[in-house]
Amino acid sequence: MTSFQRQHKIRFAECDYAGIMYYPRYFDAVNATVEDWFDEALGVSFKKLIGDRRLGAPLVGIETKFVRPCRLGDMIIFDLSVARLGESSAALDMKTLMDGDIRMRSRMTIVCVDVDMNGSAPWPDDIRDKMLSYQKTAGKGESK
Amino acid sequence: MTSFQRQHKIRFAECDYAGIMYYPRYFDAVNATVEDWFDEALGVSFKKLIGDRRLGAPLVGIETKFVRPCRLGDMIIFDLSVARLGESSAALDMKTLMDGDIRMRSRMTIVCVDVDMNGSAPWPDDIRDKMLSYQKTAGKGESK
Amino acid sequence: MTSFQRQHKIRFAECDYAGIMYYPRYFDAVNATVEDWFDEALGVSFKKLIGDRRLGAPLVGIETKFVRPCRLGDMIIFDLSVARLGESSAALDMKTLMDGDIRMRSRMTIVCVDVDMNGSAPWPDDIRDKMLSYQKTAGKGESK
Amino acid sequence: MTSFQRQHKIRFAECDYAGIMYYPRYFDAVNATVEDWFDEALGVSFKKLIGDRRLGAPLVGIETKFVRPCRLGDMIIFDLSVARLGESSAALDMKTLMDGDIRMRSRMTIVCVDVDMNGSAPWPDDIRDKMLSYQKTAGKGESK
Repeated sequence: MTSFQRQHKIRFAECDYAGIMYYPRYFDAVNATVEDWFDEALGVSFKKLIGDRRLGAPLVGIETKFVRPCRLGDMIIFDLSVARLGESSAALDMKTLMDGDIRMRSRMTIVCVDVDMNGSAPWPDDIRDKMLSYQKTAGKGESK
Repeated sequence: MTSFQRQHKIRFAECDYAGIMYYPRYFDAVNATVEDWFDEALGVSFKKLIGDRRLGAPLVGIETKFVRPCRLGDMIIFDLSVARLGESSAALDMKTLMDGDIRMRSRMTIVCVDVDMNGSAPWPDDIRDKMLSYQKTAGKGESK
Repeated sequence: MTSFQRQHKIRFAECDYAGIMYYPRYFDAVNATVEDWFDEALGVSFKKLIGDRRLGAPLVGIETKFVRPCRLGDMIIFDLSVARLGESSAALDMKTLMDGDIRMRSRMTIVCVDVDMNGSAPWPDDIRDKMLSYQKTAGKGESK
Repeated sequence: MTSFQRQHKIRFAECDYAGIMYYPRYFDAVNATVEDWFDEALGVSFKKLIGDRRLGAPLVGIETKFVRPCRLGDMIIFDLSVARLGESSAALDMKTLMDGDIRMRSRMTIVCVDVDMNGSAPWPDDIRDKMLSYQKTAGKGESK
């Protein structure tokens, strides 16, 4: 099992008056990580997913702990893995690391939806197969 | 006990390609609600809190469920109450309602920090006293 | 002639590390002002404009001067008037005032487009008529 | 003379309901380009500029033309060069290209300020020297 990783530099735009990452901007970066995962690892960009295949992957729930603040110029790693893969849902674990230390961590659930039918749909086989390679091995403890 | 409410119109800027509220923008609106609560209900604007009293109230954790999507032009209500008030922390319940129906709901924990000492600090008495009037009555069930 | 005005409190989310309004957030507030103008003054919300009438009003150009910075908690006025109304375009003047002093000023051009045809379209009569009442009187000097 | 270039993928977060880049997000990307230019080309990150050298480089004016819209997934190039370098100001030309075609173009003026004195300051020599290598050759026509 591998996790998907994306490097992210904390930009001026992301920092608030106190010089730390403004948390709605953290969620923007979380979404960018899922977007890159689809594009670079699952073989389907959001553009193709929505435009060609008429599917979406909205967020239905997310739990986040802000362990330590991020500051201007920090170079952090977003690390994504699949905690549980359902018929039309997926629970994802997102860790944000700097120099090996956890800064933020999220457990999030996305659902595959049919954009035209406006309801849930099973993950297509090609996407599901690739998602599986990011799934945590059963039995391996998931710290949360 | 009363809750603090803020009306919010879903703006063009907040909607994504699919025409629904982009979730990082939801957190932006959550933060605006806490900001207005401090300013209008607790008697201390963020400007005064940070600038004059050298205190901040960063978020340390938040759990959110997106029950039903919000769309362009929807007029929603952000409803904030205090679930639990600690020495230097507060657990807040945030419900987002449209026509009485829940759209999003969050449980969030903020902590009072001393900006100069870079550590937690007890809530000042004037803020604590006003926070208490937004606390849910003990014994009253909290749905989550 | 009247201008359209909207009050705007500079929020924590809009301020950068230096404590002043981050300029992309200024443009977000500019867009919100145009959105409110359509909704409250021109009689057609963006939701109706796009959804029902299949029209849009994208920005094709904008010139902005940042005269003095805005800071956390500042209560400013966005003041919009029509500088020139074309067949399918409109040049708008946006002044941003605090206590009567100019903070930012923009001249912007929007164009009426047919969303389905993907090309420009004449302003509908009902919208044009209402826009005219926000037009600066000819002969009256436009400071820029 | 070289220009500074940064590749930018149009993200889901940047697209509006109409599927095109929401313009305040364009300015966010403009700011990121200037930030990367300081960090990668001028030898001083915003973190060092503000934190260590107590200088800032706020925007005082920007003129932008949106020539053709950008859409989800478009891979564009931000191209920055110096149009004119003053004692404490700099006029920058920003072109945004896709497959060689202009999408947006901006002329922007930034000013070097002393953060503590709250006034303009001359560009430090090391920054000025590096800025000069991005300046357009005199006599070479600047299209605008």
